[in-house]
Amino acid sequence: MPTDTTSVVAAPGSRALEHPARGDIRLADVLHALADPVRMRIVRVLAAAEGELNCVDVELPVSKSTCTHHFRVLRECGVIQQNYRGTAKMNGLRRADLDALFPGLIDGVLRAAELETGRLGDA
Amino acid sequence: MPTDTTSVVAAPGSRALEHPARGDIRLADVLHALADPVRMRIVRVLAAAEGELNCVDVELPVSKSTCTHHFRVLRECGVIQQNYRGTAKMNGLRRADLDALFPGLIDGVLRAAELETGRLGDA
Repeated sequence: MPTDTTSVVAAPGSRALEHPARGDIRLADVLHALADPVRMRIVRVLAAAEGELNCVDVELPVSKSTCTHHFRVLRECGVIQQNYRGTAKMNGLRRADLDALFPGLIDGVLRAAELETGRLGDA
Repeated sequence: MPTDTTSVVAAPGSRALEHPARGDIRLADVLHALADPVRMRIVRVLAAAEGELNCVDVELPVSKSTCTHHFRVLRECGVIQQNYRGTAKMNGLRRADLDALFPGLIDGVLRAAELETGRLGDA
């Protein structure tokens, strides 16, 4: 089956990072990525930002190298896009791709995470 | 924080298997459980059945011991209930608990899985 062309295009002059094309994003990989609490937190912050954020603007209770790992996992499974703008690595949720492939899934997951935080606090 | 009492009660005379109470079910564990294609298949079959099924009635492309493992993972994270009826281990989706905790999540995941199967076939 032919895959869609990726919707993630590196800006002119930026170093491009590898992203799966929309048609290569798999539900199992997305669910696996979201099953980690740190990665879920990243996704929630990016969803709330509704735009791109620098890695350092997402406060996480882990080391810088662990952060880098979690962002890479999210990029490689198609949940986020990462692009260099100068020296800054900017991150954004691939909402259009995810909503096209799995309508309602990300909204449902974000709402579930919000409700759980309301019940249990930010673990 | 007090947890809800479990909604899963063993029938009289049956051997009881351990289940998390509703309040102990965690989103990360549910997403991790659903991230496995065999477990997702089990959940889809149980959702379609709208009732309890014997393990052997869920056709899976893996060995019996691997099946047992996947059913146990689903039970231990609160996605399914498992109860003995005589010698048969019967399985059912804990929809009421999951829908109460995470409204729309399971529907969203099931729909995403259905759409992906439509695109790619049953991998």
